[in-house]
Amino acid sequence: MTYKDFSAEEIDAVMQEAWDAFHLYRKFSLKQRAAFMKAIAVELENCGDALIHTAMSETNLPEARLRGERARTIFQLNSYADACEKADWLAASIDTAIPDKVPPKPDIRKMLVPLGPVVVFGASNFPFAYSTAGGDTASAFAAGCPVIVKAHPAHAQTSEIVANAIISAAEKCDMPKGIFAHVHGAGFEVGKALVMHPHTKAVGFTGSYTGGKQLFDWGNQRKEPIPVFAEMGSVNPVFLMPEKLTASANEIATMYAGSITLGVGQFCTNPGIIIGVESEALQTFVHDLGKAIQKTAPAVMLHEGIAAAYKKNKDNALLQDDVHLVAESETSAAAETPSSVTNPDGGFAGLPTIATATGQALLNNPVLHQEVFGPYAIIIRCKDMAEMIEVAKNLEGQLTSTLMATENDIINNDTLVEAVKNICGRFILNSVPTGVEVCLSMQHGGPFPASTDARFGSVGADGIKRFARPIAFQNWSNNLLPDELKDENPLNIWRTVNNELTRAAVL
Amino acid sequence: MTYKDFSAEEIDAVMQEAWDAFHLYRKFSLKQRAAFMKAIAVELENCGDALIHTAMSETNLPEARLRGERARTIFQLNSYADACEKADWLAASIDTAIPDKVPPKPDIRKMLVPLGPVVVFGASNFPFAYSTAGGDTASAFAAGCPVIVKAHPAHAQTSEIVANAIISAAEKCDMPKGIFAHVHGAGFEVGKALVMHPHTKAVGFTGSYTGGKQLFDWGNQRKEPIPVFAEMGSVNPVFLMPEKLTASANEIATMYAGSITLGVGQFCTNPGIIIGVESEALQTFVHDLGKAIQKTAPAVMLHEGIAAAYKKNKDNALLQDDVHLVAESETSAAAETPSSVTNPDGGFAGLPTIATATGQALLNNPVLHQEVFGPYAIIIRCKDMAEMIEVAKNLEGQLTSTLMATENDIINNDTLVEAVKNICGRFILNSVPTGVEVCLSMQHGGPFPASTDARFGSVGADGIKRFARPIAFQNWSNNLLPDELKDENPLNIWRTVNNELTRAAVL
Repeated sequence: MTYKDFSAEEIDAVMQEAWDAFHLYRKFSLKQRAAFMKAIAVELENCGDALIHTAMSETNLPEARLRGERARTIFQLNSYADACEKADWLAASIDTAIPDKVPPKPDIRKMLVPLGPVVVFGASNFPFAYSTAGGDTASAFAAGCPVIVKAHPAHAQTSEIVANAIISAAEKCDMPKGIFAHVHGAGFEVGKALVMHPHTKAVGFTGSYTGGKQLFDWGNQRKEPIPVFAEMGSVNPVFLMPEKLTASANEIATMYAGSITLGVGQFCTNPGIIIGVESEALQTFVHDLGKAIQKTAPAVMLHEGIAAAYKKNKDNALLQDDVHLVAESETSAAAETPSSVTNPDGGFAGLPTIATATGQALLNNPVLHQEVFGPYAIIIRCKDMAEMIEVAKNLEGQLTSTLMATENDIINNDTLVEAVKNICGRFILNSVPTGVEVCLSMQHGGPFPASTDARFGSVGADGIKRFARPIAFQNWSNNLLPDELKDENPLNIWRTVNNELTRAAVL
Repeated sequence: MTYKDFSAEEIDAVMQEAWDAFHLYRKFSLKQRAAFMKAIAVELENCGDALIHTAMSETNLPEARLRGERARTIFQLNSYADACEKADWLAASIDTAIPDKVPPKPDIRKMLVPLGPVVVFGASNFPFAYSTAGGDTASAFAAGCPVIVKAHPAHAQTSEIVANAIISAAEKCDMPKGIFAHVHGAGFEVGKALVMHPHTKAVGFTGSYTGGKQLFDWGNQRKEPIPVFAEMGSVNPVFLMPEKLTASANEIATMYAGSITLGVGQFCTNPGIIIGVESEALQTFVHDLGKAIQKTAPAVMLHEGIAAAYKKNKDNALLQDDVHLVAESETSAAAETPSSVTNPDGGFAGLPTIATATGQALLNNPVLHQEVFGPYAIIIRCKDMAEMIEVAKNLEGQLTSTLMATENDIINNDTLVEAVKNICGRFILNSVPTGVEVCLSMQHGGPFPASTDARFGSVGADGIKRFARPIAFQNWSNNLLPDELKDENPLNIWRTVNNELTRAAVL
């Protein structure tokens, strides 16, 4: 099923409705926003098997994964709704007047208010959790913003079903017309028109560097620049520290064979670069990982474009100076053609592959720093710890970095540990980067180019803050203030009153 | 006294030192950072009269104002130091592991860490509070970032004295070499080189739209874009609501004559547009404000460039269609020449001036929306409340908006109130926008073009968050975590543990 691209006029009409809705929705209470989000979760559940089957046919993702992802999306909606109502994110703050100070200190009270209509671009690899009713949409609704979703063309029909679930929830909750819109557009013009529209006040995106950076540039080139939060993936470096590697080369290899090939490597947290120091233990690791990869069957990727890009980028990496193939899945290369896979719509399989190169090769060649989206990793063999530190310092910003390390490894290698910490949003010890827990303490984002603003993240309720801004009320009488800032604290929320966190009323 | 512009090589050396210092300073405890900031406050006090006299000669600002501003700067350093150590801004958050969840939930803990070296551009109109050791510098030090100040050429010698105070404090506190640098540059090349340098990770600026927007664009055009927080001033609209105006036209006129001319109008919070509905009360207000302005003597502006720009922008506004002069200071126009003022260095006086125009004229003419930096305001006469709402909806983003209103005015004009609230960072009732209280609940920033990112502000300890980013630690053992995130909460800070704010240890 294909959908017609929205015209400039249709986009303008959508944005005008969103703008009108904004003026109504931002006055809705936190409780009303939360109820709306929870209603969307219910509708998403009510979509039943039809939604799963549509997503399976559009994305080649397996049923269990999609059921799990829908459950996660429902959890996100419900947990961000709870966070919305709890209002810690509002950062409510009150400084009471001191009339006899010179000059007199006025009463000042601050809280976050919504930015305005938010345009959300869904991800190809997460048709539910990072798409139409995903984390960006939930965060924007919680913040008090209408949402305009640009459907991902690779799963436009899935997106349409989810959009209808949102619209149904909006109707049941008496939301204003324009609170949500669903826009189709396979060409870049639709995306550009949405980002450039004067009524758009923020953008959320998950996807490629090229796509995210373009949206970011458009957002900044507007007459009125707007924040564009683009999560653009990364290579998620893994540092194998000497003592740990010596003790556990085989276990680490097994663990990482699983992480590299999980979901056919189609995660922005996929470990793409694994760094160790030349040693017998590293050779064991390379050998064991290679063996495990050989035994991992190729699986169908999301769509033809992703599979073709994977093959091209992987082949290009393997062509670079000093890069050597370690192993690939023993299922023959023919698996990379559609005829070899069972998917009746003709998906393309991604061949699990491991390469290797020296630390110097990585330091010399920017191509090796680039993400190869799929079941691929390159093992970097450093000549010593000093070179490993150089590598850490020369890597770009990352969503995650991982240390495989004993306590001694960490205590004895402070410079390395600090360098690795400085480039990432999430810092993992003795585990794998794949799997992004949805909770307040999660950080999904990182220094550029992992995301366009390291100060925010797109998973967990703190993501709400991307779409809100502080406003200070000065000298307002109590009855005219929003409930969040009234003396008596009718919502019983946490507030900082004269520099102290409290739920108490202002006396 | 003039200073030579830094060369590209000198800037590179400065930034390399800052980068090296960053790796050391970010590991300093909150207590150490706070002690350093408090030591700067002491050194600033120790600069004594010499600093005040230098600032007087460079800025034409009166002694009492400068003494007050230094006291405020010292208060900022001390209060942000307290906030730094208290660590609420760190947003420490802990989600403990749930091993028997499917899949298992890992232990995840999050806190803010510093971005890296911050370049600060001081303001011409605040040689202390928004300059070398001002709010941006204090915020960056609190966040854990080294600071590079580009001295404002209009008070370069004052800046040099303050820089030496910071350097002296840094030495006394054993801060790493490179924690602070002071760079001179009258041309734009120095500023550009600082913003574009790869080791620069954020920028703070207070000043004109032209200057701030240029820095913002440079920051976004880098290979690795960085956040540029520019506070660029605004016209700070004041809405005179009917019932309030009828009751208090004369008092409001007196209050605003003072606010418009305070500090020769050289505040970014100066009220530049005052909006009312045609009525007898509005005529009274215009008349009374005009009379009060006639009686206000011109005073010397910061420097020749500011005075010339004021005259040019004011004259240009008065030349626009349907704009009429209401009143100007009765001291003759000769006061705008240096010969008429007492300052021996030859300052230029700014002539207090009030103009008026219709609501339609403002709606039609973008020139009238622009800030005229100096003791000038235009009174906008709307034909009815509907036109006042149109005006509110058509104004750009503002640092502040003010309502002069009774409770009835507010209750009966919800659309207007919401429109006014939506464009500002600080929303004032029945007071004046000049005077920015330094406290946590202050918001000094606002929707573009008031600032480049409405989600942050530059006054109050929340300004620290501009220069920090969250990092999540996953699966770390307790003894390897930073103190802020250890189970036992050794710093006794507020943290969100499993979604609940608490100071308790994790059991």
